[in-house]
Amino acid sequence: MRLALSELAVLFAIGAAGGLVGDAGHIQAGTTEYLDDSLPFVWESQLWFPLLVGLGTASLGEIRLWLGPPRPGFDLRAGAGGIAAVIGIYALTALIYEKPELPVTVLIATLAGLVAVWLADGRPALICGLLAAALGPVVEIIVVEAEWARYDDAADSLLGVAPWLVPLYFAFGVVAARLGELAVARRSAGARQL
Amino acid sequence: MRLALSELAVLFAIGAAGGLVGDAGHIQAGTTEYLDDSLPFVWESQLWFPLLVGLGTASLGEIRLWLGPPRPGFDLRAGAGGIAAVIGIYALTALIYEKPELPVTVLIATLAGLVAVWLADGRPALICGLLAAALGPVVEIIVVEAEWARYDDAADSLLGVAPWLVPLYFAFGVVAARLGELAVARRSAGARQL
Amino acid sequence: MRLALSELAVLFAIGAAGGLVGDAGHIQAGTTEYLDDSLPFVWESQLWFPLLVGLGTASLGEIRLWLGPPRPGFDLRAGAGGIAAVIGIYALTALIYEKPELPVTVLIATLAGLVAVWLADGRPALICGLLAAALGPVVEIIVVEAEWARYDDAADSLLGVAPWLVPLYFAFGVVAARLGELAVARRSAGARQL
Repeated sequence: MRLALSELAVLFAIGAAGGLVGDAGHIQAGTTEYLDDSLPFVWESQLWFPLLVGLGTASLGEIRLWLGPPRPGFDLRAGAGGIAAVIGIYALTALIYEKPELPVTVLIATLAGLVAVWLADGRPALICGLLAAALGPVVEIIVVEAEWARYDDAADSLLGVAPWLVPLYFAFGVVAARLGELAVARRSAGARQL
Repeated sequence: MRLALSELAVLFAIGAAGGLVGDAGHIQAGTTEYLDDSLPFVWESQLWFPLLVGLGTASLGEIRLWLGPPRPGFDLRAGAGGIAAVIGIYALTALIYEKPELPVTVLIATLAGLVAVWLADGRPALICGLLAAALGPVVEIIVVEAEWARYDDAADSLLGVAPWLVPLYFAFGVVAARLGELAVARRSAGARQL
Repeated sequence: MRLALSELAVLFAIGAAGGLVGDAGHIQAGTTEYLDDSLPFVWESQLWFPLLVGLGTASLGEIRLWLGPPRPGFDLRAGAGGIAAVIGIYALTALIYEKPELPVTVLIATLAGLVAVWLADGRPALICGLLAAALGPVVEIIVVEAEWARYDDAADSLLGVAPWLVPLYFAFGVVAARLGELAVARRSAGARQL
C-alpha cells in the first residue's frame, strides 16, 4: 500500500460524504429510486451506497500511486476544487436528467473533460478515470438488474442506467487520482500547516 | 478609507449593474417578485436593490483592504472573470430555482467553491465571502418580512428566501474582495495602459 | 495562407464534428428544426450545416494568424479544453432554451466571457470572437428567412434566431483563434510527441 490507513480513511470519508450529497439530490429529484431497503438508510441512501463510493475513492487514490510517481506540491485548491467540481456535476445531473439524453450526456462529458484538463497529470489520471468510467456504471447496472434501485425512465438508456454516468464516473476517477497524489504531497514539510 | 472615492464608485457601479442584470433574470423567471413599488423601478428592480448591491460591493472591496495587504499585480482576467462568474451563477439560479432545493443549493455551493478556489487569497477573501453570505440573506429575509418582495414557493425555505442565496452571496463577497485588491493593484505603473 | 492544408483540414474536421454534436442536441431538444431536406442528412443535420461550421472554424483559425503572431508553446489542454467548453455551452443551450431569454442569454454570455478570459490573447482573439458573433447569427438569420430551418418560439427573438447565438458564436470564435495558434505551435519541436 502506498497510502497510510489514515490517508485511505480520509479518501474514504470524502468519497462517502460526496456520494451521500449527490445521491440525496438524485433521490429528491426522482432521478433514482431505491427498490430495496434491507439495509439502514443514511440520509437518502441505502448504507451500501456511501460505502461503495468511499471504497472506490480510496481504491482509485491508491491505484493512482501504483501507476506512477505523484506530482510534488500540496495544492489545497486542486483538492477542494476537484471535489467541488465532481459534486457539482453530480448535482447538475439531478437537475437536467429529464432533458434529452444526448445534450445532457454531451454537457456532462464536456464538463468531465474540463475536469481532466485541469487536474489530470496524463496517463495515470486518465487510467483512473477510465477505470471508474468502466466499473462504476457496471456496478450500477448490476444494482439495477438486482432490483435494488432503478433509474427514472428519462435516464435509463444504458442497460437501465443513465449514459451520463460514464463521464460522471470518469471525472470522479480523475479527481480521486488527484486526491491520491495530494495525500502523498501533504506528507512533506510544506503542508504541515494544514 | 483604503479606496479612493473614484475606486469606490467603480465598485459601486459594477455591483449595481450586476445586481440589475441578475435581478431582472429573477423577475422575468418568476424567482422573485416585488410586492411594494413605492420607489421608481430601474429596469425590473425597485431602486433600493441596485443601490444596496452596489453599496455592498464597494463596502466589501474596502473591508478586504482592512483585512490585509492586497496581492500585487493588476489582473484584468481575474476581475472580468470574477464578475462574469458571479453574474453567471446569479442567472443560473433563475433557470433552476423550481428544481429540488437540495441539488440546486449543492450546485450553487460547488460553483461558489470553485470561484473561491480560483480567486480567494485565503483568510481575507474568505472573511469577505462569509460576511456577504451571512448579511446578504439576512437583509433579504428582512425585505421579505417587510413584504417589499417575495420569493417563489419553490425557493423560500430559508425563512422566506432561497437557501442558495448563501453560496451566491459567498461568491459575490469573494469577488468583491478581489475587485478591492485589483483597484489597488491598478494604481501602480503596470496597469496604466488600461 | 498561414496554415497548411493539413492543418486547415484538422480545424475543419474539429468544427464539423463539434457542429454535428451541438446541432443534434438542438434537434433532439426541439430548439431548432430543419424545414428543408433537399440535401442529405448527416446524423441530425442537413449536410450544409457541418460544412459551414467546419469552414468557419478553419477560416477563423487562419484569420487569427493574419491578425498577429501566435503565442508559442503547444498546449493540448488549452485546445481540448476550449473545444470541450464550446461544445458544452452549445449543449447547455439545448437544455435551457425554453427558459426566459434574458437569464439564458446572460448565462451563455458569462460563460463565453470566461472562455475568453481563459483562452483569448487579447485583441486578435477578440476580433475573431466578434467576427464570429456578428457573422454566425447573420448566416443563421438568412437560413431562417430562407425557410431552411427555424428556431422554436421560445428562442427566436433575434430576427428569428436565438439571442444567445451571439455569445455562443463569440466563444466559438475565440476557441477557433486559439486552435489556429496551436496549429502553428504544434509545428515546432516541442510538440512532436503528439
